[in-house]
Amino acid sequence: MPNSFGKLFTVTTWGESHGGAVGVVVDGCPPRLPLEVSEIQVELDRRRPGQSDLVTAREEEDKVEILSGLFEGRTTGTPISMLVRNTDARPGAYDEMGKKFRPSHADFTYQAKFGIRDHQGGGRASARETVGRVAAGAIAKKILQLAGGVEIRAFVTRIHDLAAHSLDHFPSLDEVEDSPVRCPDPATAARMIARIKAVRADGDSVGGLIECRVRGVPAGLGEPVFDRLEADLAKAMLSLPATKGFEIGSGFAGSLLKGSEHNDLFENREGQVRTRTNRSGGVQGGISNGEEIRFGVAFKPTATILRPQATVDVHGRATKLAGRGRHDPCVLPRAVPIVEAMTALVLVDHWMRQAAQCGTFKF
Amino acid sequence: MPNSFGKLFTVTTWGESHGGAVGVVVDGCPPRLPLEVSEIQVELDRRRPGQSDLVTAREEEDKVEILSGLFEGRTTGTPISMLVRNTDARPGAYDEMGKKFRPSHADFTYQAKFGIRDHQGGGRASARETVGRVAAGAIAKKILQLAGGVEIRAFVTRIHDLAAHSLDHFPSLDEVEDSPVRCPDPATAARMIARIKAVRADGDSVGGLIECRVRGVPAGLGEPVFDRLEADLAKAMLSLPATKGFEIGSGFAGSLLKGSEHNDLFENREGQVRTRTNRSGGVQGGISNGEEIRFGVAFKPTATILRPQATVDVHGRATKLAGRGRHDPCVLPRAVPIVEAMTALVLVDHWMRQAAQCGTFKF
Amino acid sequence: MPNSFGKLFTVTTWGESHGGAVGVVVDGCPPRLPLEVSEIQVELDRRRPGQSDLVTAREEEDKVEILSGLFEGRTTGTPISMLVRNTDARPGAYDEMGKKFRPSHADFTYQAKFGIRDHQGGGRASARETVGRVAAGAIAKKILQLAGGVEIRAFVTRIHDLAAHSLDHFPSLDEVEDSPVRCPDPATAARMIARIKAVRADGDSVGGLIECRVRGVPAGLGEPVFDRLEADLAKAMLSLPATKGFEIGSGFAGSLLKGSEHNDLFENREGQVRTRTNRSGGVQGGISNGEEIRFGVAFKPTATILRPQATVDVHGRATKLAGRGRHDPCVLPRAVPIVEAMTALVLVDHWMRQAAQCGTFKF
Amino acid sequence: MPNSFGKLFTVTTWGESHGGAVGVVVDGCPPRLPLEVSEIQVELDRRRPGQSDLVTAREEEDKVEILSGLFEGRTTGTPISMLVRNTDARPGAYDEMGKKFRPSHADFTYQAKFGIRDHQGGGRASARETVGRVAAGAIAKKILQLAGGVEIRAFVTRIHDLAAHSLDHFPSLDEVEDSPVRCPDPATAARMIARIKAVRADGDSVGGLIECRVRGVPAGLGEPVFDRLEADLAKAMLSLPATKGFEIGSGFAGSLLKGSEHNDLFENREGQVRTRTNRSGGVQGGISNGEEIRFGVAFKPTATILRPQATVDVHGRATKLAGRGRHDPCVLPRAVPIVEAMTALVLVDHWMRQAAQCGTFKF
Repeated sequence: MPNSFGKLFTVTTWGESHGGAVGVVVDGCPPRLPLEVSEIQVELDRRRPGQSDLVTAREEEDKVEILSGLFEGRTTGTPISMLVRNTDARPGAYDEMGKKFRPSHADFTYQAKFGIRDHQGGGRASARETVGRVAAGAIAKKILQLAGGVEIRAFVTRIHDLAAHSLDHFPSLDEVEDSPVRCPDPATAARMIARIKAVRADGDSVGGLIECRVRGVPAGLGEPVFDRLEADLAKAMLSLPATKGFEIGSGFAGSLLKGSEHNDLFENREGQVRTRTNRSGGVQGGISNGEEIRFGVAFKPTATILRPQATVDVHGRATKLAGRGRHDPCVLPRAVPIVEAMTALVLVDHWMRQAAQCGTFKF
Repeated sequence: MPNSFGKLFTVTTWGESHGGAVGVVVDGCPPRLPLEVSEIQVELDRRRPGQSDLVTAREEEDKVEILSGLFEGRTTGTPISMLVRNTDARPGAYDEMGKKFRPSHADFTYQAKFGIRDHQGGGRASARETVGRVAAGAIAKKILQLAGGVEIRAFVTRIHDLAAHSLDHFPSLDEVEDSPVRCPDPATAARMIARIKAVRADGDSVGGLIECRVRGVPAGLGEPVFDRLEADLAKAMLSLPATKGFEIGSGFAGSLLKGSEHNDLFENREGQVRTRTNRSGGVQGGISNGEEIRFGVAFKPTATILRPQATVDVHGRATKLAGRGRHDPCVLPRAVPIVEAMTALVLVDHWMRQAAQCGTFKF
Repeated sequence: MPNSFGKLFTVTTWGESHGGAVGVVVDGCPPRLPLEVSEIQVELDRRRPGQSDLVTAREEEDKVEILSGLFEGRTTGTPISMLVRNTDARPGAYDEMGKKFRPSHADFTYQAKFGIRDHQGGGRASARETVGRVAAGAIAKKILQLAGGVEIRAFVTRIHDLAAHSLDHFPSLDEVEDSPVRCPDPATAARMIARIKAVRADGDSVGGLIECRVRGVPAGLGEPVFDRLEADLAKAMLSLPATKGFEIGSGFAGSLLKGSEHNDLFENREGQVRTRTNRSGGVQGGISNGEEIRFGVAFKPTATILRPQATVDVHGRATKLAGRGRHDPCVLPRAVPIVEAMTALVLVDHWMRQAAQCGTFKF
Repeated sequence: MPNSFGKLFTVTTWGESHGGAVGVVVDGCPPRLPLEVSEIQVELDRRRPGQSDLVTAREEEDKVEILSGLFEGRTTGTPISMLVRNTDARPGAYDEMGKKFRPSHADFTYQAKFGIRDHQGGGRASARETVGRVAAGAIAKKILQLAGGVEIRAFVTRIHDLAAHSLDHFPSLDEVEDSPVRCPDPATAARMIARIKAVRADGDSVGGLIECRVRGVPAGLGEPVFDRLEADLAKAMLSLPATKGFEIGSGFAGSLLKGSEHNDLFENREGQVRTRTNRSGGVQGGISNGEEIRFGVAFKPTATILRPQATVDVHGRATKLAGRGRHDPCVLPRAVPIVEAMTALVLVDHWMRQAAQCGTFKF
């Protein structure tokens, strides 16, 4: 099931960029969760096109409809089907894409795999697919919040070569949302905004880094071997469009330290087993240790640029292609809620798995 | 199934470091594959303890026994069960570990999750678990090689801060195996060896980077959304002990480029659609594009060090613990065949999935 | 994923009887399949309420909308999302059901499991859920037909104690559809119709048997152990509302024969290995043998009857309840296309699995 | 994963009849379960060949070895690998089977599917595969017993045409085990034994029926749609060698009743919602209702008979074949513990699933 994610809290997304709608089915949701459609909408609004002048001008309200699984304001434990109609689709704008392969897009590989592709706006490969992830993630976030005050906060730490100061506290949602670039370092955020506008004016694009932190996760979530918590987080992040890398805790830089410098020593703090440092990033041996979970994700620059590029057409003949249509010169601001959504999906799923194996029967 | 990996070519590993044996069941293996036990053994020998003076002195022959799924030298399509007995287990050497949590190991998190743990040599969390992965990966490698000459080559590119020269060709197996550190840059390899010996003498440990390249993979393997090829590779790598990061193609550095610098332009080379550059790392939109697949993995320094470290015991009381037992001061040399094995498992699985969906019926 | 079926051709249904809509997502569909919405609709029309005076009078057009996965008349290999709006929902008619448990319905067990239930028309437990199965099954049927002329034919063989003559040929679709009761024995069909009308007039209900035959399935589909073809067919049938039994080939009666009477002897017929008899029902050792697949399914009488019955309310107090709302006095006529749909889903899935394991690589 | 069963309590069996060993890996077992190897052995002894003169004379001690997942007498939550060596394999006895297809066996279908087969004693298709199921089922049974006194009792109710009196109480284990035919009706059991001996003397074989009852299962286990409890039980039973049918509660006979006769009326008994009758067989809408679970399974006569039968060889040429080797003239006595094992696997898995979805988070 290539379009599903999660073993117990299972999310299946569907839909193309310029088809009738995009949507998601959430299967396995716990029953009796209080849920309002507005709680989904608020997360979709953070992902929505047109929310600022940094992002694509495509005009989509992204109004979500919940079609099942809810009764009198609570989940019933049956599948929750959610749907967002595509209202500003302009399929005609993409005729050229049907005949030529856009560089560093999925046009060629979809054709190679399926022998057919919906080329309009990238079809299934469009980031529009993530609407369903964010809608499902909003439910997962609410579960985590009610379950124990778990908070997930992603934010931009670098755009192109503009790196924010490292953050010594867990940022509030307001700190992140205060800037349209979603970087909680105001001075750097201002420079990032200027940079994004400059590359857009130049018909170019940029990438950068997002950091994600999670607090309130109890010790014990994760699995020893293949389904380590960091393995599932890595998969979740690398399943997002435009991502090129993932690191947890000390990450790539940690490989420059010696063991004596890197190990997180245990201590007893207020009756809890805690680590003095957190180079592990909140996960040891694949299982959460109760510390803050911290990881980073690298995003490449948007593949769509407005300059003419050399490429080939579907017959393999050399040609030129300039980006058209509406797009983001930098995906990171809108990727922030998506990173949070995927993180929430991973955590709820592991929480349920942990409960199933270690909490069902008491010996 | 936390101890299984792969949807169609499914591998289930089992076993503890100091239990009776470790092993693996491979389910879904294609029938009629010619297979000799020696083909499994050669890969296990690359992972084996005691193979050089850089690695743990634990004496294990790691002699593999194939118990099922083979008939007259060919696979039958039924499960292949393989087993390696633990012969040099010294459970008594680990008594202290039963009472104290080793820093940056999985002792505390296993206890938090399961409420019980086999502390001997790390139990299930020991890298000894990867014996099963390597045995299964040997089968996957053979399939890939017969299927189309696919070659997978991992190698060490950095130990601590000693970085090898970047490699402008696909290294031969001999180039990698010539040095016990498995770095195909002989001059740097020599320095790496010296460094590992020095930190060992100092009771300390180091980490580093491994790169993996795959050539011969046809375009079309992978999935559009959650099961992108890079997502499954990231999961595979982060499921290995001691890994902290993954990047594909341009990776983290790629986020410093502009779109106009980063895009891989298509061209027609000898009748094939090819890219001029390979910042995508052989995968676009989650699907292989026929170019060389390239990714990197970051490993932290080994958590076990011979110096006394502050920690807590199982009752939460402050104490000290010095590493004992046999261990690797640097896991990278032995991790090379493991990275290759996991890569092979991902590729065979996706190859079968691609055939199932796009090759079963012809319309 | 309790609301999904199939490992490679995966179907996820969602929706409640009186919610906004019911629907299905088909993931893993082969690409390039020519598909018209009318091909889905024709199967839904066979399942539709109000199609004859034997079935519920609920007025639903059951007009299906395809929201994704189709491009220029062909499937793209991405998820196919289909939706049917509920137009004749009358939630108010079910107030009493919110307070009392209907005998032999799922009211009590849903409450016990989830602690909440959408009681309107049975909510998720309503046979309305099968809309999604039939829509997905229509795609599977088309694949099977194009793949090799595979035909699936279910039909009613007994209503209450009225048993049709056993059929010595594979019935045409017309033979089945000629009678609203979907029994291809016209004389018995007439008596069945009279019986259903009589029990309805009496406020009562009846059950019966459906037989299903499949021809054109090649030898080799199925799996040796847990996922035997008959095991997956049994699961598919027992997953349908109101089913109480499944048998394949000689079935229960076969247990009265001796081995010498029961075995299907092999012979060479026109260059093919064939069996002289077919007590195996087309499956041996869990794998199809190329003969006609034959199985039977037992349906209980509809639980909803118009007579007052003793029961308890949600507080456990004794009370009475008479069925209300619109319902089928006998589910079998409308169950025929549903049995066919589930059969098609099982066969396409196993066909793809077979291709993946045994057809991807050639040794 | 065709050789795995269960989503959370996952069992993977491996091994051929005349290979080195047969075995099983249990993944997802709850931690801290007290477990002795003798508790596994006792169930294997009930399945063992040579236990009476009614069954095959193959001499296998079926001594089980636990290789992982246990520490100091308790499960650790990691995979439990169990292995039974084949000691009385006589591969040479089966040469003819390599060249001819035995009627109503899996020889032809395995060849059709895999293009290769281990013909010795049926290879993977041998009932010897069920060793692993019974070993895993022994763990599941213990969990159920400790969890709430759940008891599973299967027994023979008919051999050939000799039907036992229907049982008005839940039989004790002793009542079942008192007779080697495992029928708790002593008079009929004696006649069954005579019948089995007679058909064996005649070189023939017989089948029959097994009933299974489970008491102590709480209301709420199961799923609404595809994974209904009865659907998973049906799959479990039809996945056993030689089974041809499954029915739950009123079963096939229930389809002869009217709704007014069939419905199970609710009442309040000692503060519990209970049903007056149990035609539902303990499951309503796919979910357990707290009543005794009751189902029946039909077994065909053993395919191996000692008389010469017409068949074809691997080249499709007509030939004759007489059964050789050691076999059971009637599989039912040894199938009783296997039916119980599969039932236990289904129930533990659903119990964990129920806990995961409905018990992890409290709203």
